[in-house]
Amino acid sequence: MAGNTFGNLFKLMTFGESHGVAIGGVLEGCPAGIQLDLKAIQKELDRRKPGQSSIVTQRKEPDTVEFFSGIFEGKTTGTPIGFAIRNTNQKSKDYSHIKDSYRPSHADYVYDRKYGFRDYRGGGRSSARETASRVVAGAIAKQFLEDIEINAFVSQVGEIKIDKNYQEMDFSLIESNPVRCPDPDTAKKMEAYIKDIRKEGDTIGGVITGVIQNVPIGLGEPVFDKLHAELGKAMLSINAVKGFEYGSGFQGVKMKGSVHNDPFNTDGSTKTNYSGGIQGGISNSMDIYFNIAFKPVATVIQGYETIDKEGNKVQAKGKGRHDPCVVPRAVPIVEAMAALVLADFVLLNRTIKK
Amino acid sequence: MAGNTFGNLFKLMTFGESHGVAIGGVLEGCPAGIQLDLKAIQKELDRRKPGQSSIVTQRKEPDTVEFFSGIFEGKTTGTPIGFAIRNTNQKSKDYSHIKDSYRPSHADYVYDRKYGFRDYRGGGRSSARETASRVVAGAIAKQFLEDIEINAFVSQVGEIKIDKNYQEMDFSLIESNPVRCPDPDTAKKMEAYIKDIRKEGDTIGGVITGVIQNVPIGLGEPVFDKLHAELGKAMLSINAVKGFEYGSGFQGVKMKGSVHNDPFNTDGSTKTNYSGGIQGGISNSMDIYFNIAFKPVATVIQGYETIDKEGNKVQAKGKGRHDPCVVPRAVPIVEAMAALVLADFVLLNRTIKK
Amino acid sequence: MAGNTFGNLFKLMTFGESHGVAIGGVLEGCPAGIQLDLKAIQKELDRRKPGQSSIVTQRKEPDTVEFFSGIFEGKTTGTPIGFAIRNTNQKSKDYSHIKDSYRPSHADYVYDRKYGFRDYRGGGRSSARETASRVVAGAIAKQFLEDIEINAFVSQVGEIKIDKNYQEMDFSLIESNPVRCPDPDTAKKMEAYIKDIRKEGDTIGGVITGVIQNVPIGLGEPVFDKLHAELGKAMLSINAVKGFEYGSGFQGVKMKGSVHNDPFNTDGSTKTNYSGGIQGGISNSMDIYFNIAFKPVATVIQGYETIDKEGNKVQAKGKGRHDPCVVPRAVPIVEAMAALVLADFVLLNRTIKK
Amino acid sequence: MAGNTFGNLFKLMTFGESHGVAIGGVLEGCPAGIQLDLKAIQKELDRRKPGQSSIVTQRKEPDTVEFFSGIFEGKTTGTPIGFAIRNTNQKSKDYSHIKDSYRPSHADYVYDRKYGFRDYRGGGRSSARETASRVVAGAIAKQFLEDIEINAFVSQVGEIKIDKNYQEMDFSLIESNPVRCPDPDTAKKMEAYIKDIRKEGDTIGGVITGVIQNVPIGLGEPVFDKLHAELGKAMLSINAVKGFEYGSGFQGVKMKGSVHNDPFNTDGSTKTNYSGGIQGGISNSMDIYFNIAFKPVATVIQGYETIDKEGNKVQAKGKGRHDPCVVPRAVPIVEAMAALVLADFVLLNRTIKK
Repeated sequence: MAGNTFGNLFKLMTFGESHGVAIGGVLEGCPAGIQLDLKAIQKELDRRKPGQSSIVTQRKEPDTVEFFSGIFEGKTTGTPIGFAIRNTNQKSKDYSHIKDSYRPSHADYVYDRKYGFRDYRGGGRSSARETASRVVAGAIAKQFLEDIEINAFVSQVGEIKIDKNYQEMDFSLIESNPVRCPDPDTAKKMEAYIKDIRKEGDTIGGVITGVIQNVPIGLGEPVFDKLHAELGKAMLSINAVKGFEYGSGFQGVKMKGSVHNDPFNTDGSTKTNYSGGIQGGISNSMDIYFNIAFKPVATVIQGYETIDKEGNKVQAKGKGRHDPCVVPRAVPIVEAMAALVLADFVLLNRTIKK
Repeated sequence: MAGNTFGNLFKLMTFGESHGVAIGGVLEGCPAGIQLDLKAIQKELDRRKPGQSSIVTQRKEPDTVEFFSGIFEGKTTGTPIGFAIRNTNQKSKDYSHIKDSYRPSHADYVYDRKYGFRDYRGGGRSSARETASRVVAGAIAKQFLEDIEINAFVSQVGEIKIDKNYQEMDFSLIESNPVRCPDPDTAKKMEAYIKDIRKEGDTIGGVITGVIQNVPIGLGEPVFDKLHAELGKAMLSINAVKGFEYGSGFQGVKMKGSVHNDPFNTDGSTKTNYSGGIQGGISNSMDIYFNIAFKPVATVIQGYETIDKEGNKVQAKGKGRHDPCVVPRAVPIVEAMAALVLADFVLLNRTIKK
Repeated sequence: MAGNTFGNLFKLMTFGESHGVAIGGVLEGCPAGIQLDLKAIQKELDRRKPGQSSIVTQRKEPDTVEFFSGIFEGKTTGTPIGFAIRNTNQKSKDYSHIKDSYRPSHADYVYDRKYGFRDYRGGGRSSARETASRVVAGAIAKQFLEDIEINAFVSQVGEIKIDKNYQEMDFSLIESNPVRCPDPDTAKKMEAYIKDIRKEGDTIGGVITGVIQNVPIGLGEPVFDKLHAELGKAMLSINAVKGFEYGSGFQGVKMKGSVHNDPFNTDGSTKTNYSGGIQGGISNSMDIYFNIAFKPVATVIQGYETIDKEGNKVQAKGKGRHDPCVVPRAVPIVEAMAALVLADFVLLNRTIKK
Repeated sequence: MAGNTFGNLFKLMTFGESHGVAIGGVLEGCPAGIQLDLKAIQKELDRRKPGQSSIVTQRKEPDTVEFFSGIFEGKTTGTPIGFAIRNTNQKSKDYSHIKDSYRPSHADYVYDRKYGFRDYRGGGRSSARETASRVVAGAIAKQFLEDIEINAFVSQVGEIKIDKNYQEMDFSLIESNPVRCPDPDTAKKMEAYIKDIRKEGDTIGGVITGVIQNVPIGLGEPVFDKLHAELGKAMLSINAVKGFEYGSGFQGVKMKGSVHNDPFNTDGSTKTNYSGGIQGGISNSMDIYFNIAFKPVATVIQGYETIDKEGNKVQAKGKGRHDPCVVPRAVPIVEAMAALVLADFVLLNRTIKK
């Protein structure tokens, strides 16, 4: 409630504004006795951090996580894992261009109206910087999940999209290019396009596809907390996301039941998988796959007209170093959120039977 | 947790299988002192009930709700509202065709695997019959919300879709045809198409569009419980839903930020509304609009091959009276879920400021 | 939240006013596959119901529970168990003596002030009748818990108390007398005293002692949800309860640590048990024992002066058939609440380790 | 759930072990726009910290809180307040006496059994050091509550107790002596007694009395989350607490209803207050008062026999600098927990009426 907690048993609570002292969180419910690979956690953070390639924002933030508790002799103790990531550039900036006016399609206006005032240094709590805390917790969730494989990749940027199924992809190529698209030819086109967009001082949207494999049967809690409903919420809670579909998705509406139904093999697996690995809100052990739509980043380095607090028209201009396209850096966030959802359901599933 | 509760302050917990004694729920947190129009609640149930028109299932269920508590002298008392809807046809049926085999793309298989056994009478808990409880609670939420207007309608069936914006629709026409499509010409085509599908013994998917108007500024609780994330979860929790998008949705990925950004008017409203009434996860008072993808109903009245509990191949055939297309009857469910989400956020918003 | 839900995984939500249509609840999270003894559930209800003996209220309410869902072929299905108990005497009564005035030390006044008005038929939601729903859920919890033994008994009425330890009691004697005191001599004195109190038109308080045996090690979730903290909350939530102590309790404040500390035996059990079976908020497998203080029932059949809604002084008089002492009928409620607390922690404990 | 979160709307999640890197927490739901007095928060921490007087542990820990987020230009922003207190002495200690054996009446044994292993440096998560995080959050809650006055004081140490009512106390004297007893004569006796106990290498229990004044009518959420039930849980969750009573408490069991009932004055206040300011689980604006029993601290500086992990008998001896009596330092913790309970109910109460 009140929006800063995610999960029930494997539960994350986060804090932090983009230009405050630190962001971070508390992760509760991670079972005791898991040998944590702290380098793997930092590596996930590095996948999300600014400045990692030529097509993302050139801001420099080391994003080093410090753990406060819940880990002893390298293992989780079952007690909450507190952690923080210091904001290294919170002091020197000039925010006068933001303080007194509202950037279009940002959260500036609604925060001011909801809370009465806002932390106007950057996006404050509405900044995507907040998602670094999710990446930390998600990286721990991944280590708890062990055999479940979670992969996400960029499948579309603007009009440029991969025209193959995820089954034809080699996931080991995801990290082979700055776009995080496992199809090398498409990746090149995307990269060139994003550079063009940046030169224009503009931004562009994109799609991330997620694939979860080796999922045990039985994850998901109908009727409200269906597996895909929680996955959907998790993804929609990521900054800039406008849509979520899984399995046949929006294409499925055009199909007939006789075609869409997935016939069983004798081992309980299915011949097709329009269901996307989830039936009745519960995993059936087939691959879970889904698409997430990201809008273009709202910060454009172009002049625009907007309003100030008193409703007067003002001329403004995006400042600083922003992402021309959010999807490459959002890939680890998608994986982290998927891991958090699954970890919670894995724990819940232990309580189902006598 | 464990899936049968929705909402935090305006909180619904439901129970019931399709062929048990009754379905129902408990609604907690509805503020005291609301004069309830009980007929309006029953009317919403009637919009969802089977047998209401020639294009839906011809099963006869009266779906009469009985209230147990929480209402006194016609007004809510602030205490929980308990209610139930008796299942009138739970006894006589023959379920032998379901008991020993798994229907493809139903929840039969995963329920058996998750819980160790299942209530095999119809869909049990996984039946869409469960959504009647949501409609009751949603109808109460609507009465609490008063001025907020929530409308949903069928915008696509198979390949047939309305090719106009929602702004061009007259919502008063939604109930003028059995499809619940406010565009009369499209509605006719849809109706004819659904009848053809039924004759084939097949089913077809569709899209419902939802529109929420007169929304106060400030609803939604970032970072995890963003307004659209909760709306998305709510919709994805409805049976047969495969996707959710709001505002520019999946089309927005192709747009540039300079176009997608919604410029402010001096009163804080925006000239365009690609944001779909939500910025940073918080309502900005513009219209909220969204699309929901429904797959074709899994029960087809055609012979098919499937497996039994021991993994043997068996021949089966859909029995009984099922919907050829789920979207017409899902319209009131969508509205109910939207109302529940909004009611919760309206209450939460009372706690935000000093 | 908002007070009508108890438990996290083994979760009960209740509804109902004393003189509405019905009271009842929904129990979620009871694991699938438990063969339910429905007669045992009704038997617990009968222990709580009015009119069962000469020292309790002579109201006649059959308190028959009807189950709506979650049970199939005699076993729990893992889906929510909905149930209701009809109020059989909700219509004919005359409440004019309550409607317009506030009974001292009842909840009349605070309900009116909190909610703006109240269901003035009897105690409404504040009536102890509500606890029948807890007894139903607790009886199911007991069946889930199997080997854990939960016993409660009356250890004090007014000044009359058992002057032995619980270890000297034969719990099979609890039901041998209407007071539910396992010490026959003391029971007789209590019974006689309660009859005297009734003749005076007065009421008297008492103490219930609870004992939980065969508890597995490890139940309880520090730092806030310690086993005794949840037990305490559970007991304090029962009508008329004014205090809770466990282990050495209020006597322990006078002890020195060198005496109070419980030395270990080599098998991990302890030689003494001042800890009351709980250390650091976690069960250690020793007996859990606790005392609960109940105030005298507020409804006295004597004339008294009070105020009406406008603050005018009015003369009033208790009507009807009320309990002169609440503790005999509260024994099954205490056991039910203990069972609900334990069931929740047993499920949570399944999620603790890798 | 899983024990590290307290409250629903005004919600605190804590982390940290006694000898890890840091302890701290995240406070969510504190309304926006509250001008925070950070010195007042540190002052509350100083009331709890070790080494503050001659009758408490002589360990030196500065307990300086660092805030990470949720505060901007001195005011709460409505976003979560993250904070941490570094553990300054986590490195040098020798824990060999604890590592391999279990201290009687500590949580060592149950933690090992529950989680499979434990952080054996001091009490780990079970150390009362954890309560410093509660004091930070409670100090913020106090500032939110403004006019509600919360006072706690030591009313009993061993057999020495104040024999006056709280109404006869001058709360401004609480801080006038190291025991935090507002009755100067009794305070002196307590202080002398505690010094004697320390010389013996022993410990002693005590009672803290809490008084809450200027409480608005209507706080508390029946039927489970009654005001006194949440207060009770809050207090029982504090280390070493064995009992809780409010209003007439355990003395009330001996009273008759005709005496115990609190007659109304015409303004709705009551002539007596055996109810302890709470009726039916809801505050009635009269003073709330309660007693909390604390057992003697388990760490005694005397030799004792105990067992090691393999169940072998070993000789051990308490080391280090521990409190001979916990109650003086527990006073600010009691106040903090009371403030957290009230803040949550104040927010919830905003959602009750139409």
